[in-house]
Amino acid sequence: MTCKLDLAVDMGHPFLNRSVDGFIKIGAVSACKVAAEETFECLHRGTFPSFFDYFCTRTLKKMCKEGAYWGTVAGVYVGVEYGIEKIRGRRDWKNAMVGGAVTGALVSAVNNNQRNKVVKNAITGGAIATAAEFLSHLTT
Amino acid sequence: MTCKLDLAVDMGHPFLNRSVDGFIKIGAVSACKVAAEETFECLHRGTFPSFFDYFCTRTLKKMCKEGAYWGTVAGVYVGVEYGIEKIRGRRDWKNAMVGGAVTGALVSAVNNNQRNKVVKNAITGGAIATAAEFLSHLTT
Repeated sequence: MTCKLDLAVDMGHPFLNRSVDGFIKIGAVSACKVAAEETFECLHRGTFPSFFDYFCTRTLKKMCKEGAYWGTVAGVYVGVEYGIEKIRGRRDWKNAMVGGAVTGALVSAVNNNQRNKVVKNAITGGAIATAAEFLSHLTT
Repeated sequence: MTCKLDLAVDMGHPFLNRSVDGFIKIGAVSACKVAAEETFECLHRGTFPSFFDYFCTRTLKKMCKEGAYWGTVAGVYVGVEYGIEKIRGRRDWKNAMVGGAVTGALVSAVNNNQRNKVVKNAITGGAIATAAEFLSHLTT
């Protein structure tokens, strides 16, 4: 069985196309994660008859919120990485590291964190992006 | 300027080779992250003269601990994904999702968490691995 769902939005520029693609894909993954988590919580608590109510009032809202948040983070990351690739003219893990760090700092600064936390989030973002880049090379 | 450092350990089987490679690479990224964080903390606090003391007593230990932990997680993930790929006979994001979920559940179970938390960590692991897989396809 193969199941393939692909949505392509053409914004007229590769930079925007990639960012929107990242937003949609990672937003969807994030929304699915919330849905799975909340379903499990409902089943675990045994309040199955009220699942629909719960879903409509809380889960759907949380799915949209988390989906939009992580989608935006992914969109920013993909855009920044594309920009760095164009500036440096090559593709390697350093793009991912710098892209992750810039994204971490940006998202953290937008969320009104202290300067202290912005730097820490930049370090974490860079590390996660580098690790993801290494792992994807190992598994393909 | 190009800087290339590659370490290959041959364990005699692609399954082990990949796992060990994942352990080394992600462990190194994790250790670097800790080093960067701790250096920033030292500079931020302004206790620069005692940096060496601090580094020897705390940072080095934390680097080894975190490096070994995340290296192991990555090794398990890469191994599990390789196994799933061999069983299913194809490569797509579903391998990453199942691999992430199995790794999340395994690591969580080994850490003696409650059953409740094991399922949640499995969901989170699957979501993160799927997101990383999508992102790596977008940026390459």
